[in-house]
Amino acid sequence: MLDELDKSMLSQMSGLHELPIGAYNIRKNGEKAARNTTANIDIVTKKDKPGIDIIVKPGTKGESVHIPVILTQEGLNDVVYNTFEIGEGSDVLIVAGCGIHNPGEKKSQHDGVHEFFVRKGARIKYVERHFGEGSGNGERILNPKTIIEVEEGGFAELELVQIKGVSSTKRDTEIKLHKNARAVVSERLLTYKNQDAESKINVEMVGRDSSARIISRSVARDESKQLFHLNMSGYERCRGHIQCDSIIMDKATVQSIPKISAFHSDSQLIHEAAIGKIASDQLIKLMSLGLSEKEAEDTILKGFLK
Amino acid sequence: MLDELDKSMLSQMSGLHELPIGAYNIRKNGEKAARNTTANIDIVTKKDKPGIDIIVKPGTKGESVHIPVILTQEGLNDVVYNTFEIGEGSDVLIVAGCGIHNPGEKKSQHDGVHEFFVRKGARIKYVERHFGEGSGNGERILNPKTIIEVEEGGFAELELVQIKGVSSTKRDTEIKLHKNARAVVSERLLTYKNQDAESKINVEMVGRDSSARIISRSVARDESKQLFHLNMSGYERCRGHIQCDSIIMDKATVQSIPKISAFHSDSQLIHEAAIGKIASDQLIKLMSLGLSEKEAEDTILKGFLK
Repeated sequence: MLDELDKSMLSQMSGLHELPIGAYNIRKNGEKAARNTTANIDIVTKKDKPGIDIIVKPGTKGESVHIPVILTQEGLNDVVYNTFEIGEGSDVLIVAGCGIHNPGEKKSQHDGVHEFFVRKGARIKYVERHFGEGSGNGERILNPKTIIEVEEGGFAELELVQIKGVSSTKRDTEIKLHKNARAVVSERLLTYKNQDAESKINVEMVGRDSSARIISRSVARDESKQLFHLNMSGYERCRGHIQCDSIIMDKATVQSIPKISAFHSDSQLIHEAAIGKIASDQLIKLMSLGLSEKEAEDTILKGFLK
Repeated sequence: MLDELDKSMLSQMSGLHELPIGAYNIRKNGEKAARNTTANIDIVTKKDKPGIDIIVKPGTKGESVHIPVILTQEGLNDVVYNTFEIGEGSDVLIVAGCGIHNPGEKKSQHDGVHEFFVRKGARIKYVERHFGEGSGNGERILNPKTIIEVEEGGFAELELVQIKGVSSTKRDTEIKLHKNARAVVSERLLTYKNQDAESKINVEMVGRDSSARIISRSVARDESKQLFHLNMSGYERCRGHIQCDSIIMDKATVQSIPKISAFHSDSQLIHEAAIGKIASDQLIKLMSLGLSEKEAEDTILKGFLK
């Protein structure tokens, strides 16, 4: 059911060369292409709207769920709703992502709404990779919405990566942290040509001793545009840290509009943002080692987005 | 014409015990109370609306202009428009500020709109101090709007201080920097009881090699509320830095919403914000030197807002 193009896309999205081990659900052009469940992880098709429920049994440890989405047709507008129930005390890896190979002139779009319930003491690592390709001029649009609620003592680690070929994206991430819950979000974003990217991350620390960290790194090249809204609110004793670094090149523009709100005097919130171009001393150093300017630039950008 | 109360207020606002040396214009309860001009600095009453034009001759150096505003009646709503023409190559100190002594139950309000044209190579230091007092429950409201345009090679240094007794303030500061122009803004804000304060500072760097720095420090006590919008935009090769630190206590809330926008790849913009309470190790250190907790707290806050 998966052809060579599908396999190449899967490998770019998730480093997979074969069907993944563990639970998975592969969605292709708006349809289920393959699914596997395990004794501890069930995947059920939603009845009221497109999408799936992923149910991880309490105490499940060391297992993974892959849910890649592949679009290879032009003119598609795929919307999907996935709900994750991460049982108490479990510890799982979830790899999602969408690859669009748009061969034509019409736009292809995927909007994924992912909702996570991370129960008491559970841990997830959620990896999401987005990329686009295709010879035509058809736009490749990805608008992910991610909603995460972490119960007492739970931990959510998010790795959100958009490396190439996405014409336009509006990312929306909402995280709510209860007592002693933690979240770490790493975002990596590269835009070029006339692409535009908007990322909104909103973390609410409602529980005592919750904590959160957002590390966002981006590179904006050519005429591309980036807009960041990174927000953190503290409603209890809590600690939050936002770090947002952007490299700007060519005719690109970057706007960073963070928001830190302390609604409790034991909230401790820090924000740091920087926008600038590649430091010239770094370039010169690499060029003195024999790299061309272009190679030196690429090396620095790669390191920055790693 | 100035009574004891007026003199006490002048001294709190500007450290003045007598009429100031140099040019001045004292406004009391919506009327001109005193004025002095010098050979180089003229002050002219506006004809179309309340307010004055302050005209500093090109090349004027080491002179000062004091333009304090005193409100000692309840129920006043004083709006004033002042325009400053700072001639090429001059270097002057301007001390403004408003003190409200509200003896009654009705609110007293002063809205000052100050517009500055800092011509080629000119320098200004602009000091603005706001405070309120009075035995009644009448609100003391101060809404200053400050618009500054700095021409090539000019420099504007702003010191904006609101230390006490202002029930409600909406501060709005707009700065536009041309080629090689610089601005440094220091803001100090203290709120307590149920006061609220909103400060919006917007710096546009439109000229090549312009640079700006905003340093904002605030303390929010009791049930008070603070909101900061500190924005910087770079449209050319330029450097900007925003630093925003708030100490939060009791049931106060603080929101910090900065915005850095790079519309040119040679714009270098940095933002740092922190909200937190007084570091306990600092408190303990001072208390080990014999201070009570209250005294230690006051010492730290005083140092922070200096």
